[in-house]
Amino acid sequence: MDDLLELLRAGLPADALITDPDITASYSHDMASFCEAGAPAVVALPRTVEQVQHVMRTATALRVPVVPQGARTGLSGAANATDGCVVLSLVKMDRILEISPADRIAVVEPGVINAALSRAVGEHGLFYPPDPSSWEMCTIGGNIGTASGGLCCVKYGVTAEYVLGLDVVLADGRLLTTGHRTAKGVAGYDLTRLFVGSEGSLGIVVKAVLALKPQPPRQLVLAAEFPGAAAACDAVCRIMESGHTPSLLELMDRTTVQAVNRMAHMGLPETTEALLLAAFDTPDPSADLAAVGELCTAAGATAVVPAEDTAESEMLLQARRMSLTALETVKPATMIDDVCVPRSRLGAMLEGTAEIAEKYGLTIGVCAHAGDGNTHPVVCFDPADADESRRARESFDAIMALGLGLGGTITGEHGVGVLKKEWLARELGDVSVELHRGIKQAFDPLGLLNPGKVF
Amino acid sequence: MDDLLELLRAGLPADALITDPDITASYSHDMASFCEAGAPAVVALPRTVEQVQHVMRTATALRVPVVPQGARTGLSGAANATDGCVVLSLVKMDRILEISPADRIAVVEPGVINAALSRAVGEHGLFYPPDPSSWEMCTIGGNIGTASGGLCCVKYGVTAEYVLGLDVVLADGRLLTTGHRTAKGVAGYDLTRLFVGSEGSLGIVVKAVLALKPQPPRQLVLAAEFPGAAAACDAVCRIMESGHTPSLLELMDRTTVQAVNRMAHMGLPETTEALLLAAFDTPDPSADLAAVGELCTAAGATAVVPAEDTAESEMLLQARRMSLTALETVKPATMIDDVCVPRSRLGAMLEGTAEIAEKYGLTIGVCAHAGDGNTHPVVCFDPADADESRRARESFDAIMALGLGLGGTITGEHGVGVLKKEWLARELGDVSVELHRGIKQAFDPLGLLNPGKVF
Repeated sequence: MDDLLELLRAGLPADALITDPDITASYSHDMASFCEAGAPAVVALPRTVEQVQHVMRTATALRVPVVPQGARTGLSGAANATDGCVVLSLVKMDRILEISPADRIAVVEPGVINAALSRAVGEHGLFYPPDPSSWEMCTIGGNIGTASGGLCCVKYGVTAEYVLGLDVVLADGRLLTTGHRTAKGVAGYDLTRLFVGSEGSLGIVVKAVLALKPQPPRQLVLAAEFPGAAAACDAVCRIMESGHTPSLLELMDRTTVQAVNRMAHMGLPETTEALLLAAFDTPDPSADLAAVGELCTAAGATAVVPAEDTAESEMLLQARRMSLTALETVKPATMIDDVCVPRSRLGAMLEGTAEIAEKYGLTIGVCAHAGDGNTHPVVCFDPADADESRRARESFDAIMALGLGLGGTITGEHGVGVLKKEWLARELGDVSVELHRGIKQAFDPLGLLNPGKVF
Repeated sequence: MDDLLELLRAGLPADALITDPDITASYSHDMASFCEAGAPAVVALPRTVEQVQHVMRTATALRVPVVPQGARTGLSGAANATDGCVVLSLVKMDRILEISPADRIAVVEPGVINAALSRAVGEHGLFYPPDPSSWEMCTIGGNIGTASGGLCCVKYGVTAEYVLGLDVVLADGRLLTTGHRTAKGVAGYDLTRLFVGSEGSLGIVVKAVLALKPQPPRQLVLAAEFPGAAAACDAVCRIMESGHTPSLLELMDRTTVQAVNRMAHMGLPETTEALLLAAFDTPDPSADLAAVGELCTAAGATAVVPAEDTAESEMLLQARRMSLTALETVKPATMIDDVCVPRSRLGAMLEGTAEIAEKYGLTIGVCAHAGDGNTHPVVCFDPADADESRRARESFDAIMALGLGLGGTITGEHGVGVLKKEWLARELGDVSVELHRGIKQAFDPLGLLNPGKVF
């Protein structure tokens, strides 16, 4: 421990190291509930690539585990500390190094806040689509580590699709450059994509070249009320089958709508079993919303309400964005699931989830990126109630099993971390797990990077 | 050799094995010029996953190298045989297994022809964008192996962006499933993307889940004539900076235009130094073309001619599509380069290429996916002329060095194969090469898959 601090201090300024246990403890975990978290030996907050390299060289020399962190807004415990580790927080490396409208790229350090990048590129008429709910807080480095999604994905895809190239400090401190700053490039294996979603287990991202899009027109939102989840999911399929490309296609169940109303007095319709939000950022969004409204009605919507203007649209988006937070007020604790199924199986997923809630005697609110088949069932429970806690955990697992059975995945966008590491092998299978271990071995032979998580 | 055939016959029908050396020789190489190619021991044409597994188990048991092949339309020699290898041709596994409009996916075997898939999904109102020039011949498996691009990429991206999941037979015959059939999924490392562009060096793709888009309106094309490459590239940057999203943005230099006219009597304007083609598949393409036409004029275009209708548009596309073939008629032989630079450096790339042509006293025609900064300089020469051949090879290398110097890549879409394997290490650097070798080792420890190529 003394060796560790002494060596770290040799290459880092004093204010880049935190050893006060009261403060380091606050770096021990991300926003996931009920995930184990250890006590870090030290928190390092480097400002340069060389400082990151120094941390990794030190960790390698002393065989000390390193847990990389962004803003710790993750929902799977992937950023949770292990006992005696170096927490490597990248939040001080927060410079936007370049924005090029001609090349439609931005070059950023990992600590840049998602919303800060969005605003900065917006000033150039550009658009960085990935928009996880935590976008006002989360970092681009964290987004890359967890392969974050958001509301935009149904039209614009996930973080992975915007990462063109990376600078990565490897476990032994060497610097690797991957990918390219060109629109296309196929020289060698796709190492860039291998790092995206690897949850800090293969290397430390210290720079990223990101692809940008031109800024679209502001989106207009429609709200449609359905008498049940099946009808709402039928509408989702009709919309996508008809060739529409909404910029957002979201679903909130009654539990979620009520929770949002209770928290923010939104005046959302509480009688609906499922509220579907669809948006378009096309040149003529009203026409697209009218067409989608008809499809909703045909699928059984009891009311279809297009927003009058962007202010009303923004209010509906706010309602959706606060869903997880609102559901957290239903009971003292929640477990947030993240199962993604093929869009055509979304109805079965929601019905199955309702059956699980009933079987286990729990409230499970569901909001979903419906256009992507990505559901967030939120299991609400009281941790002081041992039996309810057990049922919560079991229902959480039952939801993942349901998703896998429907041809889905245990995680659409939140990642594996500590929360789902037992389930990862079930989804991947033995052959895949063996190859994952081989890749981990090639990048981090001493197993120092974020141990006890994905791989 | 006798052992090999005997073992292969134990698990493959007689008509799935070719041993006649006159026929196997025709499987020895793809469409790249001047790449070494060996003589295969046998060509296997399996029809099932089990048969592919049998081939790989046999190869592993006997330590025989295996070279996977699609339609052999590749331009880098990645499918070229090595002496004594098993050529594993996937062309008989050509079934489209599923098309789902609700999930917007297709599930295919690797031997499906690109154009056949495009037409099949078109009947469902869907669109599979990747469109390499060889799309009427090339296979999806080959497209995945080489991470193919095409004309569509400026708007729709490359093959990699459409591959959601894969079934892969590993070197030892085990079956691996990667990815998902959902719109999103982040469980584990992105093995799917690792296989895309790996040129058959990590495993044999036997099934692919592909993402589809809704079919866009038919595109309308505009042709703009420029007095020089710099002005045309300035137009490209203005178009992209202004937030337009053309469905195609292509450039043909005078050498290319003349070659196309000579071959097909297209009546393209031969006085232009650079012909730029822009297209839109938006709801109102005429309005978009008018705006882009103004940007071209502002950049110095001497003529701007929007196509009257889709027939005229199709004619212009045909001209672009036949560019490489037409340039092959300029001299007895050609070497086709594939350097991609940041869009903002396209002008420098074209001017530098012209200087290289002058320095080496060669004709180098250039067509380019200008919107992506992806140039195809075609070095024209007579292989019977030893000095000209040497200069051709040197100029080919000089073009790659130029591209790397401009922050680009040696290959935007054609791949590394045999043609550029010496250059790959220069682009990647030592650290990356070491990690590539580690990955190769994890997937193919005996080094049996497509040896002597990428890794």
